[in-house]
Amino acid sequence: MCGIVGVVSSTPVNQLIYDSLLLLQHRGQDAAGIATANGSTFHMHKANGLVRDVFRTRNMRGLPGAAGIGQVRYPTAGSASSEEEAQPFYVNAPYGVILAHNGNLTNWKQLHEELFSRDRRHINTHSDTEVLLNVLADELQRASSGLALDPPTIFKAVAGMHRRVRGSYAIAAQIAGYGMLAVRDPFGIRPLCLGSVETPTGKEWMVASESVALEGIGYKLERDVAPGEAIFIDLDGKLYTQQCADNPVLTPCIFEYVYLARPDSCIDGVPVYDARLRMGDYLAEKIRREVSAGDIDVVMPIPDSSRPAAMQVANKLGVNYREGFFKNRYIGRTFIMPGQAVRKKSVRQKLNAMGVEFKGKNVLIVDDSIVRGTTSFEIVQMAREAGAKKVIFASAAPPVKFPNVYGIDMPTRSELVAYGRTDEEIARIIGADKLVYQDVEAMKQAVRDINPKLNDFDASCFDGRYVTGDIDEAYLERLETARSQADRDGTGGLGDSERSQLHLQRSGGNE
Amino acid sequence: MCGIVGVVSSTPVNQLIYDSLLLLQHRGQDAAGIATANGSTFHMHKANGLVRDVFRTRNMRGLPGAAGIGQVRYPTAGSASSEEEAQPFYVNAPYGVILAHNGNLTNWKQLHEELFSRDRRHINTHSDTEVLLNVLADELQRASSGLALDPPTIFKAVAGMHRRVRGSYAIAAQIAGYGMLAVRDPFGIRPLCLGSVETPTGKEWMVASESVALEGIGYKLERDVAPGEAIFIDLDGKLYTQQCADNPVLTPCIFEYVYLARPDSCIDGVPVYDARLRMGDYLAEKIRREVSAGDIDVVMPIPDSSRPAAMQVANKLGVNYREGFFKNRYIGRTFIMPGQAVRKKSVRQKLNAMGVEFKGKNVLIVDDSIVRGTTSFEIVQMAREAGAKKVIFASAAPPVKFPNVYGIDMPTRSELVAYGRTDEEIARIIGADKLVYQDVEAMKQAVRDINPKLNDFDASCFDGRYVTGDIDEAYLERLETARSQADRDGTGGLGDSERSQLHLQRSGGNE
Amino acid sequence: MCGIVGVVSSTPVNQLIYDSLLLLQHRGQDAAGIATANGSTFHMHKANGLVRDVFRTRNMRGLPGAAGIGQVRYPTAGSASSEEEAQPFYVNAPYGVILAHNGNLTNWKQLHEELFSRDRRHINTHSDTEVLLNVLADELQRASSGLALDPPTIFKAVAGMHRRVRGSYAIAAQIAGYGMLAVRDPFGIRPLCLGSVETPTGKEWMVASESVALEGIGYKLERDVAPGEAIFIDLDGKLYTQQCADNPVLTPCIFEYVYLARPDSCIDGVPVYDARLRMGDYLAEKIRREVSAGDIDVVMPIPDSSRPAAMQVANKLGVNYREGFFKNRYIGRTFIMPGQAVRKKSVRQKLNAMGVEFKGKNVLIVDDSIVRGTTSFEIVQMAREAGAKKVIFASAAPPVKFPNVYGIDMPTRSELVAYGRTDEEIARIIGADKLVYQDVEAMKQAVRDINPKLNDFDASCFDGRYVTGDIDEAYLERLETARSQADRDGTGGLGDSERSQLHLQRSGGNE
Amino acid sequence: MCGIVGVVSSTPVNQLIYDSLLLLQHRGQDAAGIATANGSTFHMHKANGLVRDVFRTRNMRGLPGAAGIGQVRYPTAGSASSEEEAQPFYVNAPYGVILAHNGNLTNWKQLHEELFSRDRRHINTHSDTEVLLNVLADELQRASSGLALDPPTIFKAVAGMHRRVRGSYAIAAQIAGYGMLAVRDPFGIRPLCLGSVETPTGKEWMVASESVALEGIGYKLERDVAPGEAIFIDLDGKLYTQQCADNPVLTPCIFEYVYLARPDSCIDGVPVYDARLRMGDYLAEKIRREVSAGDIDVVMPIPDSSRPAAMQVANKLGVNYREGFFKNRYIGRTFIMPGQAVRKKSVRQKLNAMGVEFKGKNVLIVDDSIVRGTTSFEIVQMAREAGAKKVIFASAAPPVKFPNVYGIDMPTRSELVAYGRTDEEIARIIGADKLVYQDVEAMKQAVRDINPKLNDFDASCFDGRYVTGDIDEAYLERLETARSQADRDGTGGLGDSERSQLHLQRSGGNE
Repeated sequence: MCGIVGVVSSTPVNQLIYDSLLLLQHRGQDAAGIATANGSTFHMHKANGLVRDVFRTRNMRGLPGAAGIGQVRYPTAGSASSEEEAQPFYVNAPYGVILAHNGNLTNWKQLHEELFSRDRRHINTHSDTEVLLNVLADELQRASSGLALDPPTIFKAVAGMHRRVRGSYAIAAQIAGYGMLAVRDPFGIRPLCLGSVETPTGKEWMVASESVALEGIGYKLERDVAPGEAIFIDLDGKLYTQQCADNPVLTPCIFEYVYLARPDSCIDGVPVYDARLRMGDYLAEKIRREVSAGDIDVVMPIPDSSRPAAMQVANKLGVNYREGFFKNRYIGRTFIMPGQAVRKKSVRQKLNAMGVEFKGKNVLIVDDSIVRGTTSFEIVQMAREAGAKKVIFASAAPPVKFPNVYGIDMPTRSELVAYGRTDEEIARIIGADKLVYQDVEAMKQAVRDINPKLNDFDASCFDGRYVTGDIDEAYLERLETARSQADRDGTGGLGDSERSQLHLQRSGGNE
Repeated sequence: MCGIVGVVSSTPVNQLIYDSLLLLQHRGQDAAGIATANGSTFHMHKANGLVRDVFRTRNMRGLPGAAGIGQVRYPTAGSASSEEEAQPFYVNAPYGVILAHNGNLTNWKQLHEELFSRDRRHINTHSDTEVLLNVLADELQRASSGLALDPPTIFKAVAGMHRRVRGSYAIAAQIAGYGMLAVRDPFGIRPLCLGSVETPTGKEWMVASESVALEGIGYKLERDVAPGEAIFIDLDGKLYTQQCADNPVLTPCIFEYVYLARPDSCIDGVPVYDARLRMGDYLAEKIRREVSAGDIDVVMPIPDSSRPAAMQVANKLGVNYREGFFKNRYIGRTFIMPGQAVRKKSVRQKLNAMGVEFKGKNVLIVDDSIVRGTTSFEIVQMAREAGAKKVIFASAAPPVKFPNVYGIDMPTRSELVAYGRTDEEIARIIGADKLVYQDVEAMKQAVRDINPKLNDFDASCFDGRYVTGDIDEAYLERLETARSQADRDGTGGLGDSERSQLHLQRSGGNE
Repeated sequence: MCGIVGVVSSTPVNQLIYDSLLLLQHRGQDAAGIATANGSTFHMHKANGLVRDVFRTRNMRGLPGAAGIGQVRYPTAGSASSEEEAQPFYVNAPYGVILAHNGNLTNWKQLHEELFSRDRRHINTHSDTEVLLNVLADELQRASSGLALDPPTIFKAVAGMHRRVRGSYAIAAQIAGYGMLAVRDPFGIRPLCLGSVETPTGKEWMVASESVALEGIGYKLERDVAPGEAIFIDLDGKLYTQQCADNPVLTPCIFEYVYLARPDSCIDGVPVYDARLRMGDYLAEKIRREVSAGDIDVVMPIPDSSRPAAMQVANKLGVNYREGFFKNRYIGRTFIMPGQAVRKKSVRQKLNAMGVEFKGKNVLIVDDSIVRGTTSFEIVQMAREAGAKKVIFASAAPPVKFPNVYGIDMPTRSELVAYGRTDEEIARIIGADKLVYQDVEAMKQAVRDINPKLNDFDASCFDGRYVTGDIDEAYLERLETARSQADRDGTGGLGDSERSQLHLQRSGGNE
Repeated sequence: MCGIVGVVSSTPVNQLIYDSLLLLQHRGQDAAGIATANGSTFHMHKANGLVRDVFRTRNMRGLPGAAGIGQVRYPTAGSASSEEEAQPFYVNAPYGVILAHNGNLTNWKQLHEELFSRDRRHINTHSDTEVLLNVLADELQRASSGLALDPPTIFKAVAGMHRRVRGSYAIAAQIAGYGMLAVRDPFGIRPLCLGSVETPTGKEWMVASESVALEGIGYKLERDVAPGEAIFIDLDGKLYTQQCADNPVLTPCIFEYVYLARPDSCIDGVPVYDARLRMGDYLAEKIRREVSAGDIDVVMPIPDSSRPAAMQVANKLGVNYREGFFKNRYIGRTFIMPGQAVRKKSVRQKLNAMGVEFKGKNVLIVDDSIVRGTTSFEIVQMAREAGAKKVIFASAAPPVKFPNVYGIDMPTRSELVAYGRTDEEIARIIGADKLVYQDVEAMKQAVRDINPKLNDFDASCFDGRYVTGDIDEAYLERLETARSQADRDGTGGLGDSERSQLHLQRSGGNE
């Protein structure tokens, strides 16, 4: 999971990109980077950490220019070299290109080898972004006969890139002296949208992973980028667009609606908040079928992400909605002192239960999803310690049973509590009196209710169907072997993009 | 507003104090400090910033010892020297004492002069903490005839201190080679509670501003410290307590229940969360009297602090509770670039409205309180832009009309929107169709409903009654002149404690 | 002026390169960088500052690998972007190459344009190193038909590079997965030498700007790299060498012997220290001719660089050698305080005169060279204030009258005190009673006395003859215009390499 | 060893103190601190490190005020807490005093205990500076009956302090709201001098450890502070002086002339440089007696400190003076890499021999002194490897045989190569063909030749006579036991001042 942004303006863009990255911070707290184009000169600063920590005044001063891109990266398994894998990446030939992306290439390893054996392009890191950038550079070289680039040539290169890469990729790039290129993969798995602002000197354009990153800084959401589509904005601000994929089909990642995106974003015509409410409606129906009416005294969310679903569940069931859990925002660290034992952190430092809301009550706790089940277990326990009579647990998403190969950092199957278990077994593991999961079809229908044109989704975590068609059991096994390897080694021989799938850390949260 | 903690243990306390300061971070985001006592040697680290930024591994390694105190300080008007005013403070004679406090001495200026003229004690900063510490040191010198200190002597010194200082003060201090001293002022304005933990080597004690800072790290809340009471815990962990004030009377600051304290804390026998629910009940009653039933479609909180009251209002009115506002947690800064215009930050970077919750509805927005009214104005506007038909605004606290002199950073009267205005006038200013304020008596009764022994409160912001009896119109005028002065000068000649009253910044929030 | 180093070993090289850069620190105090090759993956860290400040433990940990290069860069006109111009540089296509160099390309601007127009290679900075690297990369691409590289192919690329670039360049580079390449320009202007060490697993090789950087870390000096020669050491440590220039001719920069190099280095068969002694001999002869014997009571060096020459002058003249000036090693900065006037730094903070050595004496002060004359003026003044009866000034180098275009940061002609002035005029300007300059031919002969094979030198600063044959009056005028421009703009549109010629800062000194 | 400075001006002094500390940097590279007095408010910044690293712009901005003191501290055995022991120190009662000193109290332990038992003054560190400050504070309290301080009262307090403390101490202090106090101990062991500058608003005063720290920033050396004398400069700049000791006697530390002080300083009427020349004269006489004339071809110094003596030896013997050793100024560190062996640093990184000066010659190497003998051994070896036929070693100081208790960090007797050994034995240990030591009486006479009033010296390292009369064999044994203890523990229970005697580190050097 990452967030990207790209812009061509007529005034300096460093603060603009910084502000929009802050609005995308929930998509990645591991590293942040901004690259600007000042005429045909690039300037870049990137480092591990939150946006607010990575950029100081001196860094911002080193980012002049009226065009640029930015990126925030999701936490991945810690590695000494990971700072070198922060985005954006740069190649100087041909033309000079900087690129950031959100997604994961499923065939990055083959491409890595092919780039060297065929094109003598050296890839220095395990980042699939570097591979993607070099494929694009290579295609630009092939597409352009002479020196000059024009939009048709650039689009031809994108078409070539589409044919070579597999997986998910939403791209923001700058070509030195030419302009900004944005591309969404032919399945539209990861989100990307286009915004504009009217200025005294004309309309200006911007792309971002989520609409909130445009709207929060004064741009208007124009539309989503279509799957396979490329958008090029030259340095004069002129917009060119073209469909560059052979068979584009829109199957957006449904996890964006479930958990990843900000509720105040709108993705592929669907306000995320509305989708979550609708998931609450469907969840309520299922709960009504499975739990007898009088068995629930109150409905409670786990702050912050499950509030919309929980509110709606309460609403539909006609049961009181209560906020029984309080979330602490200030998280610190445990210091290793020579000769001192490490104190185990109490869960209370993150979440606390309000006794009055639990005492003697049958509580229905609604979470957006359940991954490993360990947090759910602790939450159920807290509820019981706070005096709950009965604890029913409901997940606004269906059971998470499969790894994600499209850019979400997800555990291997053996770590997923729902993998190979019945709902009753899972309920027992997390300690709940009853566990209700959303149905896969209901989840999809919830989103489709709002935008009926969305025929299909990438819902691979839930249904095991990988829309790009290149993922088989052997691929998943290789992935899981690599992960165990990485766990043993510290980092392992795996690419960052694959490693990034290994942990879905809930701590960062999307709020 | 500040948060303090003090502990005597049999094992290193640096991580323990760090963890508890994180739990008190909502009480002060301006500066943080920890001082430990390693035998009779003190070690200290303090700096401006959040707890997580102030303490690095090397700082923690420099804080050995099994006893210590910690403090977090509220944002105050920025000053180059303010780092020197971070707490704790240290004096070496007599005995060596380090001290941190929460509160504000209303007679610090007279004490400052008296300390020098009578005792030749030099006060190097404008911090009232340094004054308080020197009064205590001076009284310890007077109380002790020979060398050795014992609890009665220490308590005698506290009694002397009570007689000299005015205002609010909850204190945690360490006397080198002796132990930890905690004191609450004779009116019990600021909170202070005592906790304990059973260890293999016996019971160990801790004091903190709020119970959550004890409970979150595994201590059990024993009780609140009584107004005027002093607690001494020697280095062997033995507890001594004594009432040291002549006429103690418990009048806790009601703003703690309204806004300052964490909902999962319990202050003077009243769970803060419960008090907020109860304020919601009373607010609902008033709304019912003032607004016709059909005029409200939904009730909405301003996240995060007004949720309990809003939930209860919705409940009592039988109206739908909806979370229409989304709060962004990642806040950055605006960089000053040479030759670039500064872009005004959109409110959307902090708060965003969900269209579906507002469109065509009559919305009742509940906030915990209204200070300047500027934020309320922006929120009402966002609601209207999101499509609200009608916007009714309710405040779970009564109108804020008076400055606070007991440690809360509050604007001058002229900046308080409620000062000298009717509810209708205020409604017009914030742009609401209707504005409903809690009544003062109802607010007090809400807390008293839970602990009937709480006869009286410091509710000076609301009712203008200053319980310490030493605040008159002249004092307030001097305060306000000093503030204008400070605004002009940058810092002014005022003490930190007085300056700290000047701004009630809502941005940090208590959650 | 820069220093470079390159090595292929069988064990980690980060500390090795760090240590050798310290030994080359006198060649550049502006920025430092190390890049290592770990298999075919590169790791790099570079920043502005001294070696000891640029590399911290965490940086060194990020530099694994048994091969690598390093560089120190000379102070240049301060520019916000200069950190981006620190060396080494990297291009990924073809093969992946990192490169650092010492020198200056006189045709970098034409190459910059050609690289883009012909090869679509984007050059992102004004560094001529980036241009040089891209020429090399381009030639590697042309030279290699298939994928695999072998030494003949690499040498063919170097030959191609020699044909395209003009100026001075001593290069250390790494080709990913292949090995280390070192090249000296066809005139051998800047020094480069080859060293080896015997290890249990065989002989290992290293190149460096000066022999001291090899010998100081335990390597043995094998020989100087010949002008135009390329040396390739594959990752197994095997050495390949080839002459790649069409008409190589050795004309080493004579300023290395005069001032730049460390006295304990040996360049092109000439121990620098010995050359300086010899220059002292010739200078003594000239002094004897121009100054009457009894007119000199003592001979004094300016510490540290003119000691050898001064000692020899004293020796030959049979006059007492005295160290009358003391050099302070601890230099600080002047802080700009708001509202405070800046105190002018006294020269005494750097140099101090010992009264007893001057009082009533006729003093002959020997410096290695005179550039602007301002320091000489201050030194003469100090001598007089210390009581000198007469001050005679001698320069071990001839008058500096022309700019340097081969990598030494030298003022424009109008700033050179010797430009267009007679010795008597210069003596008047620096306030000396008499001024004696070395003769150009004597200076050259001094070096040639030690290695008679050195027929010719780059002595352009002194004789205005530019050995590369491409420098005409128009070039020099363009350079000087650019410099005035840069002085006005802060940085200007000029390349770093040209700017680096603008200031010959004596402060760093070579010791 | 430390350096101190104190000043009262009419304009800001932060830059002034910073500049003078740079000039005293050779007296202490371990830590640096500045405290300023802005009216009666003190500001302070201190930390471990060199002056140039400790003070950044933000620190300097935090040091307003027209009076202040500064200090540099010598490297001591590393300890986690040592940053807390950086000077200056502050006590607030009575009056508020900040103090820095150079020296060592031999009875600090007794004073430490007495201060607590009698005065209940808590000493928080093992620094004898904190003890000294508290004795002064205590005496100020006793001396002043009422509130107001005047010079006679302050001098009375100094007299009381003189009676209580033993050892060496040169003090610069500020009394809040009053002015600057400077004191030299009754034996005048450590240097302290007074300077002045004429300003438009009158004469202004400054004190410093060495005259160079005054002269280098534009002050004129007025005179040395007399042993036992106190100087007080009030905030209006008025100067008061008084002899406060009962039996003052001037016995300055002779090691200042031998090695510690800068050659361009003048201490107690003796230019340090001149004293070193004179020591060279006497050393030459002794060499002439012990070595046959033809046995020496050249005389060489060890740069930088032995140059004056060596020059004079060469002169007197009529032998050539040559600089055969080159000193590298850029020293780095050895990084500990996980799993990598640490490379032993070659001595060549610090010192290098010029072959031409040694080959086939009988070399007389002159050093200022010999402490452990290990460096001498390495130097002799280098000379031999460079081709020396014979190596004769001479020390401008007599054999170092006893510990220093007056503030010089010196090894224990068992580590001193001269302790209990004949010159022949030492020559064998350092590998020299012959070793010549200065005689104790000659060394003293060398200084006395320049200022005949200097009857006596602290030359305890050489003659074992401790002028303060309180050092006996038991004291020295306790010191050495403590040192072994500290070596075992890391830091030990010893005070910093005692520990600071443990290592005489030559690396920093005095130049």
